[in-house]
Amino acid sequence: MADKANKLVREITSMNDDFAQWYTDVVKKAELIEYSKVRGCMILRPNGYAIWENIQKNLDAMFKKTGVENVYMPLFIPESLLQKEKDHVEGFAPEVAWVTHGGDEKLEERLCVRPTSETLFCDLYSKIVHSHRDLPKLYNQWCSVVRWEKTTRPFLRSAEFLWQEGHTAHATKEEAIERTIQMLNLYADFLEQYLAIPVIKGQKTDKEKFAGAEDTYTVEALMHDGKALQSATSHYFGDGFAKAFEIQYTDKENKLSYVHQTSWGMSTRIIGALIMVHGDDSGLVLPPNIAPTQIMIIPVAQHKEGVLEKADQIKKALENSGLSVKCDVSEKSPGWKFSEQEIRGIPLRLEIGPKDIEKGTATAVRRDTREKTEIPFDALETQIPILLEKMQSEMLERAKKHLESHIYTAATYDEFKELIKTKPGFVKMMWCGDEACELKVKEDTTATSRCMPFEQEKIGDVCPICGRPAKKMVYWGKAY
Amino acid sequence: MADKANKLVREITSMNDDFAQWYTDVVKKAELIEYSKVRGCMILRPNGYAIWENIQKNLDAMFKKTGVENVYMPLFIPESLLQKEKDHVEGFAPEVAWVTHGGDEKLEERLCVRPTSETLFCDLYSKIVHSHRDLPKLYNQWCSVVRWEKTTRPFLRSAEFLWQEGHTAHATKEEAIERTIQMLNLYADFLEQYLAIPVIKGQKTDKEKFAGAEDTYTVEALMHDGKALQSATSHYFGDGFAKAFEIQYTDKENKLSYVHQTSWGMSTRIIGALIMVHGDDSGLVLPPNIAPTQIMIIPVAQHKEGVLEKADQIKKALENSGLSVKCDVSEKSPGWKFSEQEIRGIPLRLEIGPKDIEKGTATAVRRDTREKTEIPFDALETQIPILLEKMQSEMLERAKKHLESHIYTAATYDEFKELIKTKPGFVKMMWCGDEACELKVKEDTTATSRCMPFEQEKIGDVCPICGRPAKKMVYWGKAY
Repeated sequence: MADKANKLVREITSMNDDFAQWYTDVVKKAELIEYSKVRGCMILRPNGYAIWENIQKNLDAMFKKTGVENVYMPLFIPESLLQKEKDHVEGFAPEVAWVTHGGDEKLEERLCVRPTSETLFCDLYSKIVHSHRDLPKLYNQWCSVVRWEKTTRPFLRSAEFLWQEGHTAHATKEEAIERTIQMLNLYADFLEQYLAIPVIKGQKTDKEKFAGAEDTYTVEALMHDGKALQSATSHYFGDGFAKAFEIQYTDKENKLSYVHQTSWGMSTRIIGALIMVHGDDSGLVLPPNIAPTQIMIIPVAQHKEGVLEKADQIKKALENSGLSVKCDVSEKSPGWKFSEQEIRGIPLRLEIGPKDIEKGTATAVRRDTREKTEIPFDALETQIPILLEKMQSEMLERAKKHLESHIYTAATYDEFKELIKTKPGFVKMMWCGDEACELKVKEDTTATSRCMPFEQEKIGDVCPICGRPAKKMVYWGKAY
Repeated sequence: MADKANKLVREITSMNDDFAQWYTDVVKKAELIEYSKVRGCMILRPNGYAIWENIQKNLDAMFKKTGVENVYMPLFIPESLLQKEKDHVEGFAPEVAWVTHGGDEKLEERLCVRPTSETLFCDLYSKIVHSHRDLPKLYNQWCSVVRWEKTTRPFLRSAEFLWQEGHTAHATKEEAIERTIQMLNLYADFLEQYLAIPVIKGQKTDKEKFAGAEDTYTVEALMHDGKALQSATSHYFGDGFAKAFEIQYTDKENKLSYVHQTSWGMSTRIIGALIMVHGDDSGLVLPPNIAPTQIMIIPVAQHKEGVLEKADQIKKALENSGLSVKCDVSEKSPGWKFSEQEIRGIPLRLEIGPKDIEKGTATAVRRDTREKTEIPFDALETQIPILLEKMQSEMLERAKKHLESHIYTAATYDEFKELIKTKPGFVKMMWCGDEACELKVKEDTTATSRCMPFEQEKIGDVCPICGRPAKKMVYWGKAY
């Protein structure tokens, strides 16, 4: 049994041997995605899509509590509309897919497949915003977007991906900035509470900000290999788009003013983070709060009288307590089933065999620590939710420790280069605010500025890169 | 007040004067959609999208109970993949949008934006189906599709629309046919239970079936103006696609066999049906089981002490009972608020003013019948769910009566032509099975065969169109 049991797992490369290959193996073995015949586009299989469905359900509920309403905008953007905001079109035009023909007819104007929908939302707002009574508009959409990437990796970079994009319009600058930060905090809370992923919150430098934004804010997470992953962003647009699209409203004194706007988004990329923050050499490890299946019941010696009946009875009882449970009654060996449950990252395994039934207990095995707990049948409904809660908070604690223990401080540029080279993680270093220094860091080390954190520290007075006065403390790192 | 109250409504054309204009007015006034700068593409505004979200939530739960799993397939289909099944490509190629460029580069192969995803699902199944143990595959996706329509109408016909498409693969023909019918029945149940729309179930003639299907089944609904609307379809493919895409599995005797497939879908078109089955001259009327907001509380004389507090208290109590409630505390007049609630089709209005508070009652007004009920505050939580249930079932009953009273029988072709001309609705007539007779009916009357109903009747022995022996009784009608 042990032989078969580990066959599936043995096909996963160890993360210490080759992290990139480990990632690809996990994604395939856990049946999250399948490659398609379309360059750079991937298929989200049931195991992968179910994670996104859960992310969507929970994040959407958080959005709605803050007054956000969902809409659906067209897939296509006419070329002339994309061109209305100068910085925006420059940022996106090189990587869009162009529709030129409808059926046999050549279109009069090319349409791009949306890479993001600022221009469509602005066009809508210019039609439906007239008075201060029409504000704020707090719209969001869940959809797919297309960016013609040359190199692609499952979840992390693909020509098409799923995301949500929120777009808001406000009467005042203050209100728009408040919403920008509110949504960034909401993402950070969601990532901590559901995905057990701790983040660094901060602002992007001008070089790294969104095309057309005045300010871009980000939440940055640290992967197991010490590389950073931008997990969600929130942008403050000022009235730049409003002026380009003439989105004006009459205020209480009947004066015409431009609206102030924001946008914010999180994508299926975050599933890549989920894998790389929590996964191990046996596969995926899903936090209980986001796992599509929280408990897999595996009957042992299921041909013996009473085993399947008991398993089914327990399944129903747990489902009635609001838990998400499956029971693997296939003809595979228990060892094989164990391996499959582990690869897929199902948080808790519940083993039930004839001996357990005799004793009146089931054995619960945590996916993350493999810790075993014997639980009396009549205590399952109370004990399992506690166990899952404990697992969730311990997963977050472990990820926090990993993050905190991989943050370094550089006082000199030599120290910085040495740390970036030898220590996977974030390096904190002062910065003068000049893009030239960011470019130099990238050239010397391949690391980029991840963010100027909200929690600033003063490491020194000068920018160690150029020696001029320092303006900000920046988190630097290699990133996905 | 009465003046203002009816201003909004007066802008809706009466359905008896001009049904098409009434429809367009309702769609715009209820703020369901907004037109976009992209030809044939519409924007689903919050009121419209929220209906689709509720449809999705409830229909998806019904799918999942039957074992269906959700996935996400690429937006694009390479031209060579679309061409693999001959009938399929002939049906769809003339109406697809073609992507020819990615950024500045011309693509080696054109990609079409999916008009439907049979070819992508088949390509996936050919990779992941190997053994009988891999079957059945019961996949579904929620997405948007594009068909380059020349003339468009909100919800009913647009270049891009939202839908779900289920695609299944089975070991046997019997199992695939069973699934085809199961999903058709599921659609009919959903339409009755949630949308209060009764339907005729039946099979499409060869002329009307899906490109690539062996058999297409449909549920046909009747709109208020007597025109039919195909509300959902379910297709049996046999092994045609399996042969084109080489989807084979080894059975228990280790023999290679082709799978048998189905597909089935419902789209945002159904929101058009919802409007045209239940709407009236004051706007939308939403069945309580699908209404995003079930109850609108409207405070009367809200500046008076205690009114807003009481309204809010009742809102919270009703929400705690699982109802979806909003309270309109804007500065508009109550009459204006009444009109808005009516236009948007919110099932129940709850009026609360100082006099009501004195009496300890609120006035509930049903949107469909405008019937008023005084309900003591302490009975609201028990009475309102009963009222909503009653409204739901009476809406279905009314729609059933409308359907049944608009079904006619024609024994001769002259009688048929007279009925189609003078009586909006379905006409039952026998048919020989020859496409030529269908074409003649269409030419003579613009009506089409809607379906060969499961509940067959024998009206006569011959096809009244050509005089040859009759094979089937067919429902005919003009359709959206």
